[in-house]
Amino acid sequence: MAMTTKPISTRTSTPRTVAALPTPALVVDADALEHNLATMAAALPGVTCRPHVKAHKTTVLARRQHELGHLGFTCATPHEVIGMAESGLGDDLLLANETIDPGRLRAMADTDARVTVAVDSDATITAAADAGIREVVVDVDVGLPRCGCLPDDAGRIADAARARGLEVRGVMGYEGHVVGNHDRAWRAEQTERCMAKLLRAHELVGGDLVSGGGTGTFDLNTWCTEIQAGSYALMDTAYGKLGLPFRRALWVEATVISVSSKGWAVADCGLKALGMDHGDPSIDGAEVFFCSDEHITFAPAEDEPRSVGDRIRVWPAHVDPTVAYHEVMNVAGADGTVEETWAVDLRGW
Amino acid sequence: MAMTTKPISTRTSTPRTVAALPTPALVVDADALEHNLATMAAALPGVTCRPHVKAHKTTVLARRQHELGHLGFTCATPHEVIGMAESGLGDDLLLANETIDPGRLRAMADTDARVTVAVDSDATITAAADAGIREVVVDVDVGLPRCGCLPDDAGRIADAARARGLEVRGVMGYEGHVVGNHDRAWRAEQTERCMAKLLRAHELVGGDLVSGGGTGTFDLNTWCTEIQAGSYALMDTAYGKLGLPFRRALWVEATVISVSSKGWAVADCGLKALGMDHGDPSIDGAEVFFCSDEHITFAPAEDEPRSVGDRIRVWPAHVDPTVAYHEVMNVAGADGTVEETWAVDLRGW
Repeated sequence: MAMTTKPISTRTSTPRTVAALPTPALVVDADALEHNLATMAAALPGVTCRPHVKAHKTTVLARRQHELGHLGFTCATPHEVIGMAESGLGDDLLLANETIDPGRLRAMADTDARVTVAVDSDATITAAADAGIREVVVDVDVGLPRCGCLPDDAGRIADAARARGLEVRGVMGYEGHVVGNHDRAWRAEQTERCMAKLLRAHELVGGDLVSGGGTGTFDLNTWCTEIQAGSYALMDTAYGKLGLPFRRALWVEATVISVSSKGWAVADCGLKALGMDHGDPSIDGAEVFFCSDEHITFAPAEDEPRSVGDRIRVWPAHVDPTVAYHEVMNVAGADGTVEETWAVDLRGW
Repeated sequence: MAMTTKPISTRTSTPRTVAALPTPALVVDADALEHNLATMAAALPGVTCRPHVKAHKTTVLARRQHELGHLGFTCATPHEVIGMAESGLGDDLLLANETIDPGRLRAMADTDARVTVAVDSDATITAAADAGIREVVVDVDVGLPRCGCLPDDAGRIADAARARGLEVRGVMGYEGHVVGNHDRAWRAEQTERCMAKLLRAHELVGGDLVSGGGTGTFDLNTWCTEIQAGSYALMDTAYGKLGLPFRRALWVEATVISVSSKGWAVADCGLKALGMDHGDPSIDGAEVFFCSDEHITFAPAEDEPRSVGDRIRVWPAHVDPTVAYHEVMNVAGADGTVEETWAVDLRGW
């Protein structure tokens, strides 16, 4: 798969203002992004935050996180690991996911990067060891019905990994069923329960790393040695409801293409430009009816009637799958100029 | 945007069996696809079907539809129009959508193809005429809250288009709120209501084309001169519930990466490999719990316990946004060989 590892902002054809971008177009609010990155770097400095690149899939953005002191990164796919390695951001890459794909495991092992992969079974240990992977963490089920061994089985998994010559760096466990709940007190209580399981596993496994957490628990999860937050950089409307200190920094710029006398307008940002698993996106002051493949139908605010050609901002409900539909993100200054265009170069698997 | 206009099946690195494909991977059942294409070509031969390329975004697949006699195509984006034109499939391309983007309108007008665009307002007429577009249809609101002028306004729109020198080929109107309903009798009744509006508009507009319909109404909509069906080629679980004569022909091949003693398994096909606006995908015999970015958690059938490394087929709920996440589709024979690999070359805008 072809990799683009440099920003392509030098393309002469790139419009220099957001208003001139062909739509739909992914736009990043430069100031909000910097606020979010600085806020996280202050709250969880250095390696206490291991930013998750799956939320933005953009090595240029990861480089900015690296400059702010986060030397380690979390990845969800081998392609993200390899892309980060090829971009020189391979100080400490954690594939926080299981794979038994021998080709991709070898490709990760063959990079110059420090690569650690998650294992939760004998099969994943065997695949990693056979492919030349050197370091692993034991992935632990802390309550989310997904990957991870039972806490009480973590010691056996670690022993099996060590028996295959793998260095076991510690444990990881993601409280993904907790991070999005609107009740902060509930999040705190549930995170403590989840982390009790992870710490029990850690006692059995050993190692320096206790990795977990996300944007919704970044300041509640005080048990992990590092937090795998990703969405905080760009945010979305789902996380926006949690009262976190991060600003929404990503929208899809769209153009109104039709206005009905029946009270609705239509813009050219459909469900192929948006992650839809968290529901419809939002438009400030407007009521979104629904999205089709290439359309969003909405009722404009009464005091802001819309005309064909108007630009609107569509705020995604879920940042990760939204970004994955776009080849580039356009970084916009407060004055509406496009300061840079970043390749979303970690898409795919 | 770089275009790939030829199949890339000659890539030496492409595995020759579905079982050897790195996952997640989009797979097309060659026999089911041929059945679907032949069924439609028999029901709506020649130009009475104008296949919608938005559902597969793949010029190689469109070429097969063209070989079966469907010389005209429906597109949802200028990029689809231009890609089809560059692939030599430009006999009669209809952009069944509004755009006022001058650059993209000019790019469509500058192709060798016969290009017709939808208009529903003075602004869209002006943009089309200014860009050198020669032919239009009047898009009519037939009940779906989206683009389209009121039926009684269609004559005025047509006159305005003709005043700008545009050839008005007729009308289009999509009963998109009807095509997915499970009750065939209701679909038939509602389609008749919608088409009464479209025919009223056609009386005011004139021209040869009355374009509309979709996979869910392909044999019910007897008023249109051509049906804009797209999903019939590959199908999805949403359309699969309608009792149509088309077979499911598209799945995402996935690998089981984790099995919990609590009763669930996890495979590597997440919501970045699936359109999620119609809900969760399906796995035969299994109960799908939920999808995360790169995971699907499911309870396997009791008589089919799963092990790490097992392959499963994940059936998307909505074909269009699923295809749009993938670079290629792998065409599989009944024996599990990958016969060809087709570039999904019409992605983006």
